[in-house]
Amino acid sequence: MTDFNQPISGNDLARFSGPNTFMRLPQATSLDGLDVAILGVPMDIGTSWRSGTRFGPKQIRAESAMIRPYNMTSGAAPFDSLNIGDIGDLAINTFSLSDSLRIIQESYSAILSSGVTPVAMGGDHSITLPILRAIAEKYGPVALVHVDAHADVNDDMFGERETHGTVFRRAYEEGLIVADKTYQIGLRGTGYGADDFKEAQRWGFQHFPASELWNRSLHGMGAEIRRDIGNRPVYVSYDIDSLDPAYAPGTGTPEIGGLTTPQALELIRALRGLNIVGCDMVEVSPPYDTSGNTALTAANLLYELLCVLPGVTTK
Amino acid sequence: MTDFNQPISGNDLARFSGPNTFMRLPQATSLDGLDVAILGVPMDIGTSWRSGTRFGPKQIRAESAMIRPYNMTSGAAPFDSLNIGDIGDLAINTFSLSDSLRIIQESYSAILSSGVTPVAMGGDHSITLPILRAIAEKYGPVALVHVDAHADVNDDMFGERETHGTVFRRAYEEGLIVADKTYQIGLRGTGYGADDFKEAQRWGFQHFPASELWNRSLHGMGAEIRRDIGNRPVYVSYDIDSLDPAYAPGTGTPEIGGLTTPQALELIRALRGLNIVGCDMVEVSPPYDTSGNTALTAANLLYELLCVLPGVTTK
Amino acid sequence: MTDFNQPISGNDLARFSGPNTFMRLPQATSLDGLDVAILGVPMDIGTSWRSGTRFGPKQIRAESAMIRPYNMTSGAAPFDSLNIGDIGDLAINTFSLSDSLRIIQESYSAILSSGVTPVAMGGDHSITLPILRAIAEKYGPVALVHVDAHADVNDDMFGERETHGTVFRRAYEEGLIVADKTYQIGLRGTGYGADDFKEAQRWGFQHFPASELWNRSLHGMGAEIRRDIGNRPVYVSYDIDSLDPAYAPGTGTPEIGGLTTPQALELIRALRGLNIVGCDMVEVSPPYDTSGNTALTAANLLYELLCVLPGVTTK
Amino acid sequence: MTDFNQPISGNDLARFSGPNTFMRLPQATSLDGLDVAILGVPMDIGTSWRSGTRFGPKQIRAESAMIRPYNMTSGAAPFDSLNIGDIGDLAINTFSLSDSLRIIQESYSAILSSGVTPVAMGGDHSITLPILRAIAEKYGPVALVHVDAHADVNDDMFGERETHGTVFRRAYEEGLIVADKTYQIGLRGTGYGADDFKEAQRWGFQHFPASELWNRSLHGMGAEIRRDIGNRPVYVSYDIDSLDPAYAPGTGTPEIGGLTTPQALELIRALRGLNIVGCDMVEVSPPYDTSGNTALTAANLLYELLCVLPGVTTK
Amino acid sequence: MTDFNQPISGNDLARFSGPNTFMRLPQATSLDGLDVAILGVPMDIGTSWRSGTRFGPKQIRAESAMIRPYNMTSGAAPFDSLNIGDIGDLAINTFSLSDSLRIIQESYSAILSSGVTPVAMGGDHSITLPILRAIAEKYGPVALVHVDAHADVNDDMFGERETHGTVFRRAYEEGLIVADKTYQIGLRGTGYGADDFKEAQRWGFQHFPASELWNRSLHGMGAEIRRDIGNRPVYVSYDIDSLDPAYAPGTGTPEIGGLTTPQALELIRALRGLNIVGCDMVEVSPPYDTSGNTALTAANLLYELLCVLPGVTTK
Amino acid sequence: MTDFNQPISGNDLARFSGPNTFMRLPQATSLDGLDVAILGVPMDIGTSWRSGTRFGPKQIRAESAMIRPYNMTSGAAPFDSLNIGDIGDLAINTFSLSDSLRIIQESYSAILSSGVTPVAMGGDHSITLPILRAIAEKYGPVALVHVDAHADVNDDMFGERETHGTVFRRAYEEGLIVADKTYQIGLRGTGYGADDFKEAQRWGFQHFPASELWNRSLHGMGAEIRRDIGNRPVYVSYDIDSLDPAYAPGTGTPEIGGLTTPQALELIRALRGLNIVGCDMVEVSPPYDTSGNTALTAANLLYELLCVLPGVTTK
Ligand SMILES: [Mn+2]
Ligand SMILES: [Mn+2]
Ligand SMILES: [Mn+2]
Ligand SMILES: [Mn+2]
Ligand SMILES: [Mn+2]
Ligand SMILES: [Mn+2]
Ligand SMILES: [Mn+2]
Ligand SMILES: [Mn+2]
Ligand SMILES: [Mn+2]
Ligand SMILES: [Mn+2]
Ligand SMILES: [Mn+2]
Ligand SMILES: [Mn+2]
Repeated sequence: MTDFNQPISGNDLARFSGPNTFMRLPQATSLDGLDVAILGVPMDIGTSWRSGTRFGPKQIRAESAMIRPYNMTSGAAPFDSLNIGDIGDLAINTFSLSDSLRIIQESYSAILSSGVTPVAMGGDHSITLPILRAIAEKYGPVALVHVDAHADVNDDMFGERETHGTVFRRAYEEGLIVADKTYQIGLRGTGYGADDFKEAQRWGFQHFPASELWNRSLHGMGAEIRRDIGNRPVYVSYDIDSLDPAYAPGTGTPEIGGLTTPQALELIRALRGLNIVGCDMVEVSPPYDTSGNTALTAANLLYELLCVLPGVTTK
Repeated sequence: MTDFNQPISGNDLARFSGPNTFMRLPQATSLDGLDVAILGVPMDIGTSWRSGTRFGPKQIRAESAMIRPYNMTSGAAPFDSLNIGDIGDLAINTFSLSDSLRIIQESYSAILSSGVTPVAMGGDHSITLPILRAIAEKYGPVALVHVDAHADVNDDMFGERETHGTVFRRAYEEGLIVADKTYQIGLRGTGYGADDFKEAQRWGFQHFPASELWNRSLHGMGAEIRRDIGNRPVYVSYDIDSLDPAYAPGTGTPEIGGLTTPQALELIRALRGLNIVGCDMVEVSPPYDTSGNTALTAANLLYELLCVLPGVTTK
Repeated sequence: MTDFNQPISGNDLARFSGPNTFMRLPQATSLDGLDVAILGVPMDIGTSWRSGTRFGPKQIRAESAMIRPYNMTSGAAPFDSLNIGDIGDLAINTFSLSDSLRIIQESYSAILSSGVTPVAMGGDHSITLPILRAIAEKYGPVALVHVDAHADVNDDMFGERETHGTVFRRAYEEGLIVADKTYQIGLRGTGYGADDFKEAQRWGFQHFPASELWNRSLHGMGAEIRRDIGNRPVYVSYDIDSLDPAYAPGTGTPEIGGLTTPQALELIRALRGLNIVGCDMVEVSPPYDTSGNTALTAANLLYELLCVLPGVTTK
Repeated sequence: MTDFNQPISGNDLARFSGPNTFMRLPQATSLDGLDVAILGVPMDIGTSWRSGTRFGPKQIRAESAMIRPYNMTSGAAPFDSLNIGDIGDLAINTFSLSDSLRIIQESYSAILSSGVTPVAMGGDHSITLPILRAIAEKYGPVALVHVDAHADVNDDMFGERETHGTVFRRAYEEGLIVADKTYQIGLRGTGYGADDFKEAQRWGFQHFPASELWNRSLHGMGAEIRRDIGNRPVYVSYDIDSLDPAYAPGTGTPEIGGLTTPQALELIRALRGLNIVGCDMVEVSPPYDTSGNTALTAANLLYELLCVLPGVTTK
Repeated sequence: MTDFNQPISGNDLARFSGPNTFMRLPQATSLDGLDVAILGVPMDIGTSWRSGTRFGPKQIRAESAMIRPYNMTSGAAPFDSLNIGDIGDLAINTFSLSDSLRIIQESYSAILSSGVTPVAMGGDHSITLPILRAIAEKYGPVALVHVDAHADVNDDMFGERETHGTVFRRAYEEGLIVADKTYQIGLRGTGYGADDFKEAQRWGFQHFPASELWNRSLHGMGAEIRRDIGNRPVYVSYDIDSLDPAYAPGTGTPEIGGLTTPQALELIRALRGLNIVGCDMVEVSPPYDTSGNTALTAANLLYELLCVLPGVTTK
Repeated sequence: MTDFNQPISGNDLARFSGPNTFMRLPQATSLDGLDVAILGVPMDIGTSWRSGTRFGPKQIRAESAMIRPYNMTSGAAPFDSLNIGDIGDLAINTFSLSDSLRIIQESYSAILSSGVTPVAMGGDHSITLPILRAIAEKYGPVALVHVDAHADVNDDMFGERETHGTVFRRAYEEGLIVADKTYQIGLRGTGYGADDFKEAQRWGFQHFPASELWNRSLHGMGAEIRRDIGNRPVYVSYDIDSLDPAYAPGTGTPEIGGLTTPQALELIRALRGLNIVGCDMVEVSPPYDTSGNTALTAANLLYELLCVLPGVTTK
């Protein structure tokens, strides 16, 4: 256990010091020996309103220096249980969305082939399509827990079929996900057609609109989803705009009436026990929250996701 | 139905493009054929603490480009039901509050005489007094749904009787509103006298202090108000500072312990069925929220108000 | 009663005018005749992550100009009941944490010896240790209501035993507080050991983790604490980071999943009747919230604390 | 000499502490014994584009805490030479520009009648008209050094004849200033008519457009103006927008291609020896420069103006 | 002359009101009758460091409301001389750089074929390549005045040959510009090879590094360039990052040691008399200057470019 | 030569990606083989006004990703000439200034004993005293080029003798520097005594006040200093507040009327040929410039310092 990577302690090196890795973990130079690889996918060319998510990984890492290794609520001790490293950023092509998606898919195939669980920091949500392609290549269609203000099931945008708004229609069409084990949580806002959401429901997607979750604990809903998924491999895609803009102002397409951070914590903690094979945290846009607090929130939620990965023990 | 004005779709023209009208509706050059006129009243000289609301209409319009035409929660389709246009800004006199109030009243009389429902983007709350004068001239005393941290029933401020803090005392004194059909929702904070609020209650105003609404759905309260008003003509005046500063930091006189955006959505949606003859959204101060999110919130709430106007159908 | 200091009214002098004292009270030049002394302790050299709290007192005072003298919810009339003055800032040594702590303790001893109740605006939380030393010197061990995201019970940080993260372990060790009348409210986040919190619980500290308070009114919990304390002298130490970063973004070590301002108001109002012998509001860091709203929140909570001081009557 | 008011030293009390008076001078409670009265005129209702100058005095005072008493360049020692106090803010009527102008004039008449030299912190530039009325009442028409991007000689704006853009036409018409001893320095930008500036030149105003000053020391020009004015009483009105927006971003109507702070310092220092009977620093708008640096610049220029007041000795 | 479009006067409608068109000109709905078409090309997917330029046109238009029609320095009266309209934004494809470049070229071909002079607001600099393609299609190779911190002559970036850093190599290779009538002004910073700039010089490009321009008027250099170009058609491409970050902080790839706004004004004014067939202002990134001043600067420089278009008379 | 560390190219990995090291150099894990060690000293507890410099190293590194390896003006190729690595941050004690100074001195002694040239990113200016102690221990008294708005020669502040304002008096007293080879460049502002600066001049310090440098190239002055120093070992201490706040707003004690970035570049480039044995860049305070441009400026000036280190060749 002592061989596992450990975050630098804030009592050993002042938090504002040290490497800009996630939680100041060692910068991994290879995948060897890792159980979990945290990586950045710095990109914003797939977004339709405000940009800036290209700086997401850098700021999430900076703010993650606040986080200590033990989860005082759940008792989870991820760094005692798994060998977790920050493997840096993917070398996307910032001038071409399609080429970047290709690079992401290839990079993920390589990571997955070495048996490491990938945990991505976006970047806009368009990164999740190539990730799911690589995931499905390994695992077949997976269950999907998708937390987002938006269903991201447009058919196309300006004729483009691969953007941050079309991810999950493509994933459905390509058979990357199990439709009736797909949970979209936090949906709200306005649409282009009165039945924007209904088609996805017909595919089998299970919708949990934000308005049905207001003022409620998400513990029960999370537990229900966990039971429904069972032992299937599951991917968790977390769009920070699922949170209300009060909690996460620094994002590209904010929608009012969203989830709270207590709800986010309840939801993730309820996922403990799932066979999570990968996850991501997307759409943090630093220029729109110079306090860093949106990135801090994303860092904490990523940490909570680490705490529910398979194999993490509690103390 | 196809003749009605439609917002430009974000799939036709990138959201950060196009005219800076509300939801990128066509800029209306006359009132002819309109059912609803959205207009700006850019003013901040009636405010007592932070200024900046003069830029409210411009930023609300900018942020409204995020909104799509269909309400996914209620099914409302306002642009299929009514012909709605953005008629631009009133030409107020930024050096004289009293002259500006005169201009607003005259402009409203003209709008109302043509049978168009006016929907205003403030500007500070002082704009609502001349609006109510014109409204009452047409409809007689109206019911009033007033959502605000403040009752705005001061007698005077520095000897001035027409400011953003005196609106509803004047409206009461002048018989512009039906006192016992006046609902003040979200009140809180501190006062200059221990019974600041009690006098208004004696007039008949119905008070819904924020502290009695915490952690509650406003659906029921909204429904009760709707029943209580019945078929009377009703005006809705929405001060963005009714929201907690966490949800709406960009305002001039923020008060802690306020409403949430879910509550705001529940309240407005519950007003469906009322005979709304006009409404406003006031006190958005862009310099105090450079992220634009307060204006985005105001834009969404204005959209929700459009969704409950008489004649709007659902799908 | 008319001899007591009164805040300048916003109807007499525009709120953005006048002295930068708390609520625009008279600047007190001596302690004579005061019941309560509000003072600043502008310091940030005891903080471990973001600095900036040295400007806390200045900005809290600036934003307090929004507050009017009467509490419309509880009816409290603090300025009719007590003579309250702003006595300015302590002359800390900004280059030495240890020397500053010595200065604070000596200053507090002087204030307490004259029978005045001190109400401090921080500054980082390290100010509370010397305050408690002076308090205990006068009153013996006191009960403690400590509202904070953090327990602040580290043994040391970089070998230092007096920082913003070690305050309450020192207070316990030095017998400044009654361990089983110490209430830590709002705790959450991550820790350096799985039982970071358990040791303090073994001392007797009563913990109220934020996760157990989500979506709950704090009225009942506050009442219970009040009964449990009884007539003992009690000190209230209020770390603004107890609030969720959505409500208080301008602080040095924000933790997600925190309290709301309604909960803060409920909690403080429930403390009415306690024998409060001093209180503080710490960790407001202005550079991280240029809107001023975090300071506004702190100012309002300080005002609410004034409203529950012994001797304050209601109207 | 030791009886004169002295700023609190940054070595005695940390700069971020103490009263929010100009340079932390004592708050004067009367004019007795003062040679110079520094005062705030917090107002923005006379401005035509961005507002926010109502917070100018508060932020200029806050930033002035950086300034030490001796001028290392010129050797001036204003606080050894004159008794200077901060007398607080005028109680303007924030809802009425015309009433505020009346209040300013009356307040100035009172100050001037007691033989004290007034030094004002604005507020928008409309404050200078009532100031000049009071000045001229005492001294007759005065020479005027007016540093500004704008000539402020409009006839009216929206029909209003007393705004921040009409000040010096009114001053000319009313005979408050000596036309051919009026120096307008830093003019630039665009106009409503091709000869906007020419009419004022025909009255005798001497224009120093910014474009003729670029890359030049203003020492010579300042000396020339000083000689031209001779012993006449002179008023100095300093609009911070005379500076380039790079040097003073926080202002309401910025114009590119402006003066630099070295030029501002050269200019003011060259005015030494003039019979200055009053001066102002206007148009600092805090919301548009949250770093505080525009206010810091204004505070320093005000300090430099103090250094060239009649009677100030050098060391 | 009175038939030409005129900006709305700030004395008729408060500047913070009215349409968000350039200088509040009428929104043109067709090219008919226009001499000059101002248009937005809102895009940031061609940029390599900070994004955000997609909001450039919107903010440049907002800030342009400060500008009045007459140039007080040069006497130019563009709106008396030419019929100028704002034709809105091009409908780029925000998910595909290559497709967007195609759309820009086609749109420009249409504009040029109707005889209108196009004036573009970017958007990142990659927009200039398709513009030059359309320009050259009509006029053959043109002279080029290119003001920029960067030469933008990379061969490729991540294998992409059409980005904001490769524009002028492509333009040279494709014969869109006359190499020895290409003037690159303001170059500075660091490079990937010691002779990054030399190859372009060998093609004939004339380089004016910023370091040779420091502290100098650009009047003479501008005049020399004007004489050197003679009557040839010339395109002016203005990258706001040519200015020092002190003058234009809100841009994507700032380089220190740049030009000043006085130099920018001198340069543009010296171009009067050239046969300008189009121009652009690119790389304004609003999220990085929330004061709006970078956009204000861009708006003013665009106005100055209008003032030197062929056919503009002076008064 | 190919064995030397090279920055990651912006054409290989998008600039917003990769490690947060200076210029994305490899993170050095030992001093072996290095000629130059870049290191962070993240600290702000020695500062007297605004804090925040503890985040200086992190933001300087982030912004340095913009810089490419070759100096296009001077032709310098530092990474072809020297092996340069980023060795991370010193583990200062953020709760104790005196302990931190001890740690810095010891760390420097270790670095110097291994023959590596240290290049520090501050932190506040108090870091330079222990650095000079270590430097003098190795080299004896050194010449000093000190660029700063302030002379930093106070005797004490609040009784403390080691702060950011006392550095160079201590260095003089302790014989760490050669007094008449000490050059203080950019001095300005106000002082606590009329002869604050004169005492240092009597020691031999050579003063170059900013006011004597306005509008001048610093090339000549730099060359003169270079000749005057000759072959002596020299330390360069660069306080970012030497720049005017227009150029470097993000600093703790800004003073108007400062240097420009062109002057900074001229000065540093003129130092080529000196026997520089170490240098630092201090006082960058990220919270006061969220655009990152002050840090970008600091990063560029650090790069220029690398370019004039002994042994750097040009191409
Ligand atoms: Mn999404
Ligand atoms: Mn989303
Ligand atoms: Mn209101
Ligand atoms: Mn209100
Ligand atoms: Mn604490
Ligand atoms: Mn805390
Ligand atoms: Mn002016
Ligand atoms: Mn002006
Ligand atoms: Mn360019
Ligand atoms: Mn460029
Ligand atoms: Mn220094
Ligand atoms: Mn300095």
